[in-house]
Amino acid sequence: MTEFELIERIVAKLGTAATGEDVLLGPGDDAALVSVPEGFDLAVTTDTLVAGRHFPVDAPGHLVGERALGVNLSDLAAMGADARHCVVSLTLPEARLAWVEGLACGMAGAARRHGVAIVGGNLSRGGLAITVAAHGIVPRGKALLRSGARPGDAIFVSGEIGAGHRALVRRERRFYAVQPRLALGIALRGTATSAIDVSDGLLADLAHVCAASGVGAEVVLERVPVADGVDAMAALTAGDDYELLFTARRAPEASERVTRIGRITSGSQVTLLHGGRPIPLPASRGYRHF
Amino acid sequence: MTEFELIERIVAKLGTAATGEDVLLGPGDDAALVSVPEGFDLAVTTDTLVAGRHFPVDAPGHLVGERALGVNLSDLAAMGADARHCVVSLTLPEARLAWVEGLACGMAGAARRHGVAIVGGNLSRGGLAITVAAHGIVPRGKALLRSGARPGDAIFVSGEIGAGHRALVRRERRFYAVQPRLALGIALRGTATSAIDVSDGLLADLAHVCAASGVGAEVVLERVPVADGVDAMAALTAGDDYELLFTARRAPEASERVTRIGRITSGSQVTLLHGGRPIPLPASRGYRHF
Repeated sequence: MTEFELIERIVAKLGTAATGEDVLLGPGDDAALVSVPEGFDLAVTTDTLVAGRHFPVDAPGHLVGERALGVNLSDLAAMGADARHCVVSLTLPEARLAWVEGLACGMAGAARRHGVAIVGGNLSRGGLAITVAAHGIVPRGKALLRSGARPGDAIFVSGEIGAGHRALVRRERRFYAVQPRLALGIALRGTATSAIDVSDGLLADLAHVCAASGVGAEVVLERVPVADGVDAMAALTAGDDYELLFTARRAPEASERVTRIGRITSGSQVTLLHGGRPIPLPASRGYRHF
Repeated sequence: MTEFELIERIVAKLGTAATGEDVLLGPGDDAALVSVPEGFDLAVTTDTLVAGRHFPVDAPGHLVGERALGVNLSDLAAMGADARHCVVSLTLPEARLAWVEGLACGMAGAARRHGVAIVGGNLSRGGLAITVAAHGIVPRGKALLRSGARPGDAIFVSGEIGAGHRALVRRERRFYAVQPRLALGIALRGTATSAIDVSDGLLADLAHVCAASGVGAEVVLERVPVADGVDAMAALTAGDDYELLFTARRAPEASERVTRIGRITSGSQVTLLHGGRPIPLPASRGYRHF
């Protein structure tokens, strides 16, 4: 099978997921062409999943595809962006047609659910890895940044923390079925003062917000919505939740579950409170060493 | 060294290459923010370079960076797009700081020369590979597609063919110093009826144009501008030239060297003429098998 035949199979599996109202030209040319509506800016992010590192080498293609798209869309959600289109670059050690078609189906399904078009890509021989670059649109000036948290803001998190890590350990489908909080991100425009998605671990991600905003934070351990069967301290450092962690002056109006877990301070450190007193921070897995 | 420290070093090396007039937010948040001017569409492409496959494993970082950006911008040139910004995803087996800083410098230099901003990226552990997703802008409706060639159009190619392959074999710097024909692509808006960049090999790329346009083509071997020291038949299949191959009803006004090499026919095949007669096509390396 040639590279071009394999690409044809992939594009066939994408079907309508390669099209959209703002897609002028989908896969098959030197580049795709998309339109960005007037008055909107484009949010752009990229993320790579490497086999054996970000997913088990024997993971089914459709699950890997779902996760690859989901983790990228989660970054767009954290900007308050409306996810619109993406390109995908796949490196593959050999032509595993069934696996690759599964990957395309998994991505296409997730793309349709989230209203995102897969407009182009690239296929190369190499170690198994999949890179997505995703685009969202956001009304000019309305993006949620990491840098807007101010002392006195409340800190909120969506959903439950630790569930992503639990799913990884138990090899549950949820690990792959990342649910990017796109609707919540859009709802938070104008309300949240800062936002980030929980990918490295809640405490590590909160530290990113604090660094970008020049503030500190207090998190009340008892308030953190920890997933069933997960140790609270592990949940705070586990990452892979793809929930939104955000700050705001008031509680947002959101249809999703959102929990207030602490407040922004004028310091520069993240402090964890238990029984009203500071306790040592758990060693973070948020900082991956090379 | 942590992932975040390494990213900081990379961003420091990018310097002003991470900024631009249409960059609202560069590296460091969940996504970058860019603006697309009114009346323009966005051309989006992605390409991955894998160590040991697309460049020698011992290639210096700054050269790999230059090539990684160049091959992506070449795709934008083939659309007639004005290259504006890109994101970069790097997978790396270990923290080779000097190599990675070299890569960042090489990309930054090429980005500045071409007026492109490197607005974000991602760093993962994995086999050495670099994926760029690049964006260009093109006035609405003015993009150069592969599908517009019509019988009677003349076929042109820029520069010389075979020079990229020669540089690979001789390990010349030119292999890395890809010169995307961005100015030519822009000049061809409104003149070229179709365009593609020569990456798979002139004959294979011409076949892509013919398939997309539903036409055939005749190439006159004697007219092909073959680089010195390269066999003509090898040059036609070698790829890696990153010249523009395009069709037009009349010769374009271009400051670059452009050579008329044949014409579009009403058939569906690419025919090679030598001494006025069809000769067999060389076996193509343009179709890479998995």
